[in-house]
Amino acid sequence: MLESDSDNNSPLDLWYQERHNDEVSFGLHVKKVLHSSQSPFQRVDVFESTGFGRVLTLDGLMMCSDRDEFVYHEMISHVPLLVHPNPKRVLVIGGGDGGTLREVLRHDCVEEAVLCEIDGEVVEAARQFFPALAFGLNHPRAKVHIGDGVEFVKKSAAGVFDIVIVDSTDPIGPGVGLFSGEFYREVKRILAPGGIVMAQCESPWENKFDLAKVYGNLKDAFTSVYSMVGSIPSYPYGFWSWGFASDNQHPFHKIDLERARAIEKASKYYNVDIHRGAFALPNFLRQKLANVVENA
Amino acid sequence: MLESDSDNNSPLDLWYQERHNDEVSFGLHVKKVLHSSQSPFQRVDVFESTGFGRVLTLDGLMMCSDRDEFVYHEMISHVPLLVHPNPKRVLVIGGGDGGTLREVLRHDCVEEAVLCEIDGEVVEAARQFFPALAFGLNHPRAKVHIGDGVEFVKKSAAGVFDIVIVDSTDPIGPGVGLFSGEFYREVKRILAPGGIVMAQCESPWENKFDLAKVYGNLKDAFTSVYSMVGSIPSYPYGFWSWGFASDNQHPFHKIDLERARAIEKASKYYNVDIHRGAFALPNFLRQKLANVVENA
Repeated sequence: MLESDSDNNSPLDLWYQERHNDEVSFGLHVKKVLHSSQSPFQRVDVFESTGFGRVLTLDGLMMCSDRDEFVYHEMISHVPLLVHPNPKRVLVIGGGDGGTLREVLRHDCVEEAVLCEIDGEVVEAARQFFPALAFGLNHPRAKVHIGDGVEFVKKSAAGVFDIVIVDSTDPIGPGVGLFSGEFYREVKRILAPGGIVMAQCESPWENKFDLAKVYGNLKDAFTSVYSMVGSIPSYPYGFWSWGFASDNQHPFHKIDLERARAIEKASKYYNVDIHRGAFALPNFLRQKLANVVENA
Repeated sequence: MLESDSDNNSPLDLWYQERHNDEVSFGLHVKKVLHSSQSPFQRVDVFESTGFGRVLTLDGLMMCSDRDEFVYHEMISHVPLLVHPNPKRVLVIGGGDGGTLREVLRHDCVEEAVLCEIDGEVVEAARQFFPALAFGLNHPRAKVHIGDGVEFVKKSAAGVFDIVIVDSTDPIGPGVGLFSGEFYREVKRILAPGGIVMAQCESPWENKFDLAKVYGNLKDAFTSVYSMVGSIPSYPYGFWSWGFASDNQHPFHKIDLERARAIEKASKYYNVDIHRGAFALPNFLRQKLANVVENA
């Protein structure tokens, strides 16, 4: 005879495990699975973890957690926005959780932030389970568009955005089109003079994707590309990189210090020292990106 | 009837898992366990991993891997050695794997590097399984002493070392004595004028140990303490911190650039930009260490 559940005081010991490259895994203890669905593009799951708050995964891969999402979203947003002298129109490709929009819209000079996310179910999951992220999606200066980022960029008029942020998944599945030189040449066309692209570019420790190629696609379209790094415990290897690309902007020589001091006051990761320090690359990354990025 | 092993082409799918804080885990796929023993102090294991080369664990906790040991060993050594104007005598407490000695002895100005490791079985495991690390243990200018670091420091004469590196395990088990203010005051006594202490100080993301207390013990003994950070994928949260303490040295204002350029040429992580950038702390760490470290 089975005992009733109520007599059992030991809940299931559930662990989420992301096995990366079949050689390394990252795990989080799970309190409760809150949501699972299959969208037209990918599997979408949300769970409550013991140590990292709520977690969103796409096709089983970690996208963001309450505990450390701020690193990714602050760094991908504030670095280009505080280098550009007057960013008024910002486009975010991907980023359906809303975290990047939230940080972009902390800049009062931004008149409009457009988000183009391919998967409406990601946006819905954020609205339902991640209020702190969805804050960005609901902002009066945000415009949320559900559709293919590659198509959206192709159809946009020339020179209309000051900053384009590519907040994509890995270069597999729905994200693959956002990692090509052809895509970045189209992105360049829709940038106004002085425009900047910021794109997530995988972990410096990665050996599944060729980082020289990932960054090289940016370099195909822009005069100069720089690599920036930061600590994100829930991402593979706990260390992440982003590409800063433009034809005429340097990533930290002319930070707008007045605006930056205001942003850093309310940030959990970003400050002006971190901004500059994030472009200091370890030797092993300099070697991987030699002749591709300016700071290698 | 059991099939013979030779008919079985699927080896055991073995994973090492370090469950940290019961909330987060780090795992490595294991090819083969090479060594397991119980020393008088702790359990010592060595295994061959699929993606991180050979791995040493103590009481089941990751100590070092072939893939990323260079970060820890380069940063804990080169930063104090390149700031001190003329480091001749260096003491390493712990560090029985030999990696820190190896990096210290790349500096030709160092006349003698003394290691005091409590557990002789760690030194033996390094000599047997980690030749690239044990290189440091076998160096002609290295003196390896097996014994208690706290006692060794107490018995040392005043003012005899230029740099003391505390390359310890966590503040539990045999490492706990190396995290007290009393210990650091004894360390200060054996330092020559202008001396520097560099000590491992756990992950910035840690909430099992109180980082303000870990750094505060250094601050009990020295005029100024700075926190330095770096990316180590195989350590908890993938991000580590070290404390730089002294009465009169700044951690990056006067780097000896001539010596530094020679060191960075043969390093996998360290370079002068990384040296400076490693003292830029994220806001959340500045908050944890406010009023304790100078760069918070």
